[in-house]
Amino acid sequence: MTPSPGDRVRVDRAGVTDEGVLMPSSDEDHLVLKLEGGYNVGVDRDAAAVEVLERGARTVDGDGDEADASAVEFDDDLPTVALISTGGTIASTVDYRTGAVTARFDAEDVLRAVPDLAGRANYRGRVVANILSENMNPEIWTDLAEAVHEEIEAGADGVVVMHGTDTMQYSASALSFMLDTPVPVVFTGSQRSADRPSSDNVMNAVCAVEAAKSDCAEVLVCMHATPSDDHCALHRGTRVRKNHTSRRDAFETVGAEPLGRVEYDPHEDRVDVSYRDGRAYARRGDTDLALASDLAEDVELVKFTPGMDPAALEYLDGKSGVVIEGTGLGHVHTDLIPRFEELVDDGTTVAMTSQCLEGRVCDRVYDTGRDLLDAGVVESGDTLPGTAKVKLMWALANVADPEDAMGRDLAGELTEESKPWV
Amino acid sequence: MTPSPGDRVRVDRAGVTDEGVLMPSSDEDHLVLKLEGGYNVGVDRDAAAVEVLERGARTVDGDGDEADASAVEFDDDLPTVALISTGGTIASTVDYRTGAVTARFDAEDVLRAVPDLAGRANYRGRVVANILSENMNPEIWTDLAEAVHEEIEAGADGVVVMHGTDTMQYSASALSFMLDTPVPVVFTGSQRSADRPSSDNVMNAVCAVEAAKSDCAEVLVCMHATPSDDHCALHRGTRVRKNHTSRRDAFETVGAEPLGRVEYDPHEDRVDVSYRDGRAYARRGDTDLALASDLAEDVELVKFTPGMDPAALEYLDGKSGVVIEGTGLGHVHTDLIPRFEELVDDGTTVAMTSQCLEGRVCDRVYDTGRDLLDAGVVESGDTLPGTAKVKLMWALANVADPEDAMGRDLAGELTEESKPWV
Repeated sequence: MTPSPGDRVRVDRAGVTDEGVLMPSSDEDHLVLKLEGGYNVGVDRDAAAVEVLERGARTVDGDGDEADASAVEFDDDLPTVALISTGGTIASTVDYRTGAVTARFDAEDVLRAVPDLAGRANYRGRVVANILSENMNPEIWTDLAEAVHEEIEAGADGVVVMHGTDTMQYSASALSFMLDTPVPVVFTGSQRSADRPSSDNVMNAVCAVEAAKSDCAEVLVCMHATPSDDHCALHRGTRVRKNHTSRRDAFETVGAEPLGRVEYDPHEDRVDVSYRDGRAYARRGDTDLALASDLAEDVELVKFTPGMDPAALEYLDGKSGVVIEGTGLGHVHTDLIPRFEELVDDGTTVAMTSQCLEGRVCDRVYDTGRDLLDAGVVESGDTLPGTAKVKLMWALANVADPEDAMGRDLAGELTEESKPWV
Repeated sequence: MTPSPGDRVRVDRAGVTDEGVLMPSSDEDHLVLKLEGGYNVGVDRDAAAVEVLERGARTVDGDGDEADASAVEFDDDLPTVALISTGGTIASTVDYRTGAVTARFDAEDVLRAVPDLAGRANYRGRVVANILSENMNPEIWTDLAEAVHEEIEAGADGVVVMHGTDTMQYSASALSFMLDTPVPVVFTGSQRSADRPSSDNVMNAVCAVEAAKSDCAEVLVCMHATPSDDHCALHRGTRVRKNHTSRRDAFETVGAEPLGRVEYDPHEDRVDVSYRDGRAYARRGDTDLALASDLAEDVELVKFTPGMDPAALEYLDGKSGVVIEGTGLGHVHTDLIPRFEELVDDGTTVAMTSQCLEGRVCDRVYDTGRDLLDAGVVESGDTLPGTAKVKLMWALANVADPEDAMGRDLAGELTEESKPWV
């Protein structure tokens, strides 16, 4: 009897025996077993003997128990959360049974993929893209913002965006500038796929849904805050950065503390969202829904390093905007300054950021900085370089004075204070 | 009576009166006063009334007391430390009285600039460059490595390199690859100039000299470890990064802990150097002195961000090497892969790093990574992107198989282990 997802099975391998419910897996080589305690374990299929103890239905509910395969009913007592998929490791679970890309998925598909989401919200699902996140581009940011806008307009009490982790910070920045939102818009993803014992898939999804039901009406990123499965951090979309290639707690708020956290204890079925005392944030309903999704796509980020060939700047002719990732307080080799002056004179907005990542640029301190200011380069405060690129794309298409905007805070990306030496 | 450095003075401003010894200042607008307790305070010259209490000699010693102006005598009981200046905020103090650039400066000049260095070593000083560190370039790295080599060959027991902070990490990496050293080579700098009350100038210089006398024969960076004046960290030159634009504790070891620390307590005249238990490092005398200072200068660092114009890669034709700063585990947009393949086919070494900064690249996990490997791109483990650029410059000029070298540890820049998911 070939085991199928939903079946109660016994798995023997290398002297270890587990019983539990077989979960969907996106990987032919591994089985994923939900144990009694609620944990998932991944098992190498070739090394395991699997015995089906009891046939399951085609779907499983939040406890890993067998569930009725009929469509999930709408619960008037629960808020409605829109789940929007762009692809990536976390979305691959949802697509397991739907197969190829579909424009919509329903609550049943969601609960089949992540049973732990059951009973937390009514779900509406839609697919905006199904890409590896390194292939994310500005056109899809526009599509994504429009989809989020539609879902909120249609009554969603919160939105969860499932996104690959590679470029999540850029997309979260884009939506931060494009959207005025009266409800939470929460990005989440997965550093380890669902078929791995250490997957962060389920906990991140559950915490993101709870954050989407919370009172913080901002664009947030919800990911593991520590190497343990104890809580997720809620990062502001414009200040978050993937700071580790592989750790589950790779995402960090740079230059500040996260806005909030989601405590997670599956054994007590406890998931608590809280926001940090003293951090200002928009409350649910504070802001009217609005969308400004146009972007100037011809904005480039250029990182300066010692020995850089000036030819690296030749392709920038005619660009609407350039963000420099300079050294220290915002510097480049003196020989490059005339080239930036030439670009400014030809109508390109050139904005300075720092590869230090933390702290603000300040080009009034040293000669090189003053020469850059004289050349017409504008400062971006403590905005992260990647966020500054996205901001400049947006500002060039949506505000009257983009150069001025780069020095002001629009979406939490820039600390407006005059303390260059803090 | 116009006050001069070394004079004992009384300074009144805004109801505050201080007495102390006037110190050299590189800035016409400020006075620097050394108080009884050993602290320096900076005072706005225009807002202060200064009365000379007692004329000083032309130099002051470590306690801010007047000292004899005669040349400093060689002390057989002290080690000899070579001080090499490349410019930057810290070196500007030394140049205060020497005026224009000179090829050499002597112990008297050093002690006049930083009196607290007195009694710690015999000093030999030389100027390799006098530039803002954003203007640092590979030619000067070669000059610097040759100067360090000469000083060690001439008997220096340790070397301190005074360097601007903007590009210190790149220069420290360059010397890490170029030099085999039997003595410590310690980079230090200053985030705040000597005329500011919060200057880190003196403490960093003192700690660097003590590190140069220690038992760790590596290329190190010695800078404030905390916002307090309590200790400096000793970072390995290939793993250090300026992570804040302005804080005195801007420098951090990425992906590991610092190698050691220098405790600093000027009140007890106590400066203790210690190294972390369990961290392997080269001891004094372990390594024979050797120099390989050639570099392939035509190596570029290219940072990938979403929406990047493929035209950014056009100027790379014919380059010896390219380092990509990719996303996540080491990815770029799929459309860019053929261009990197073309470069590899034409003889360019193309190496992958991650903009995450922490963690290793691993291109075996996802399709994009495997396509990059198939295209001939090589992985750089957990090497920092800037360090990888310097390493590739060096490897192309000095080793038989640079592509292989990018995946191996040469100078502490790469953790050689096979745990891509740690």
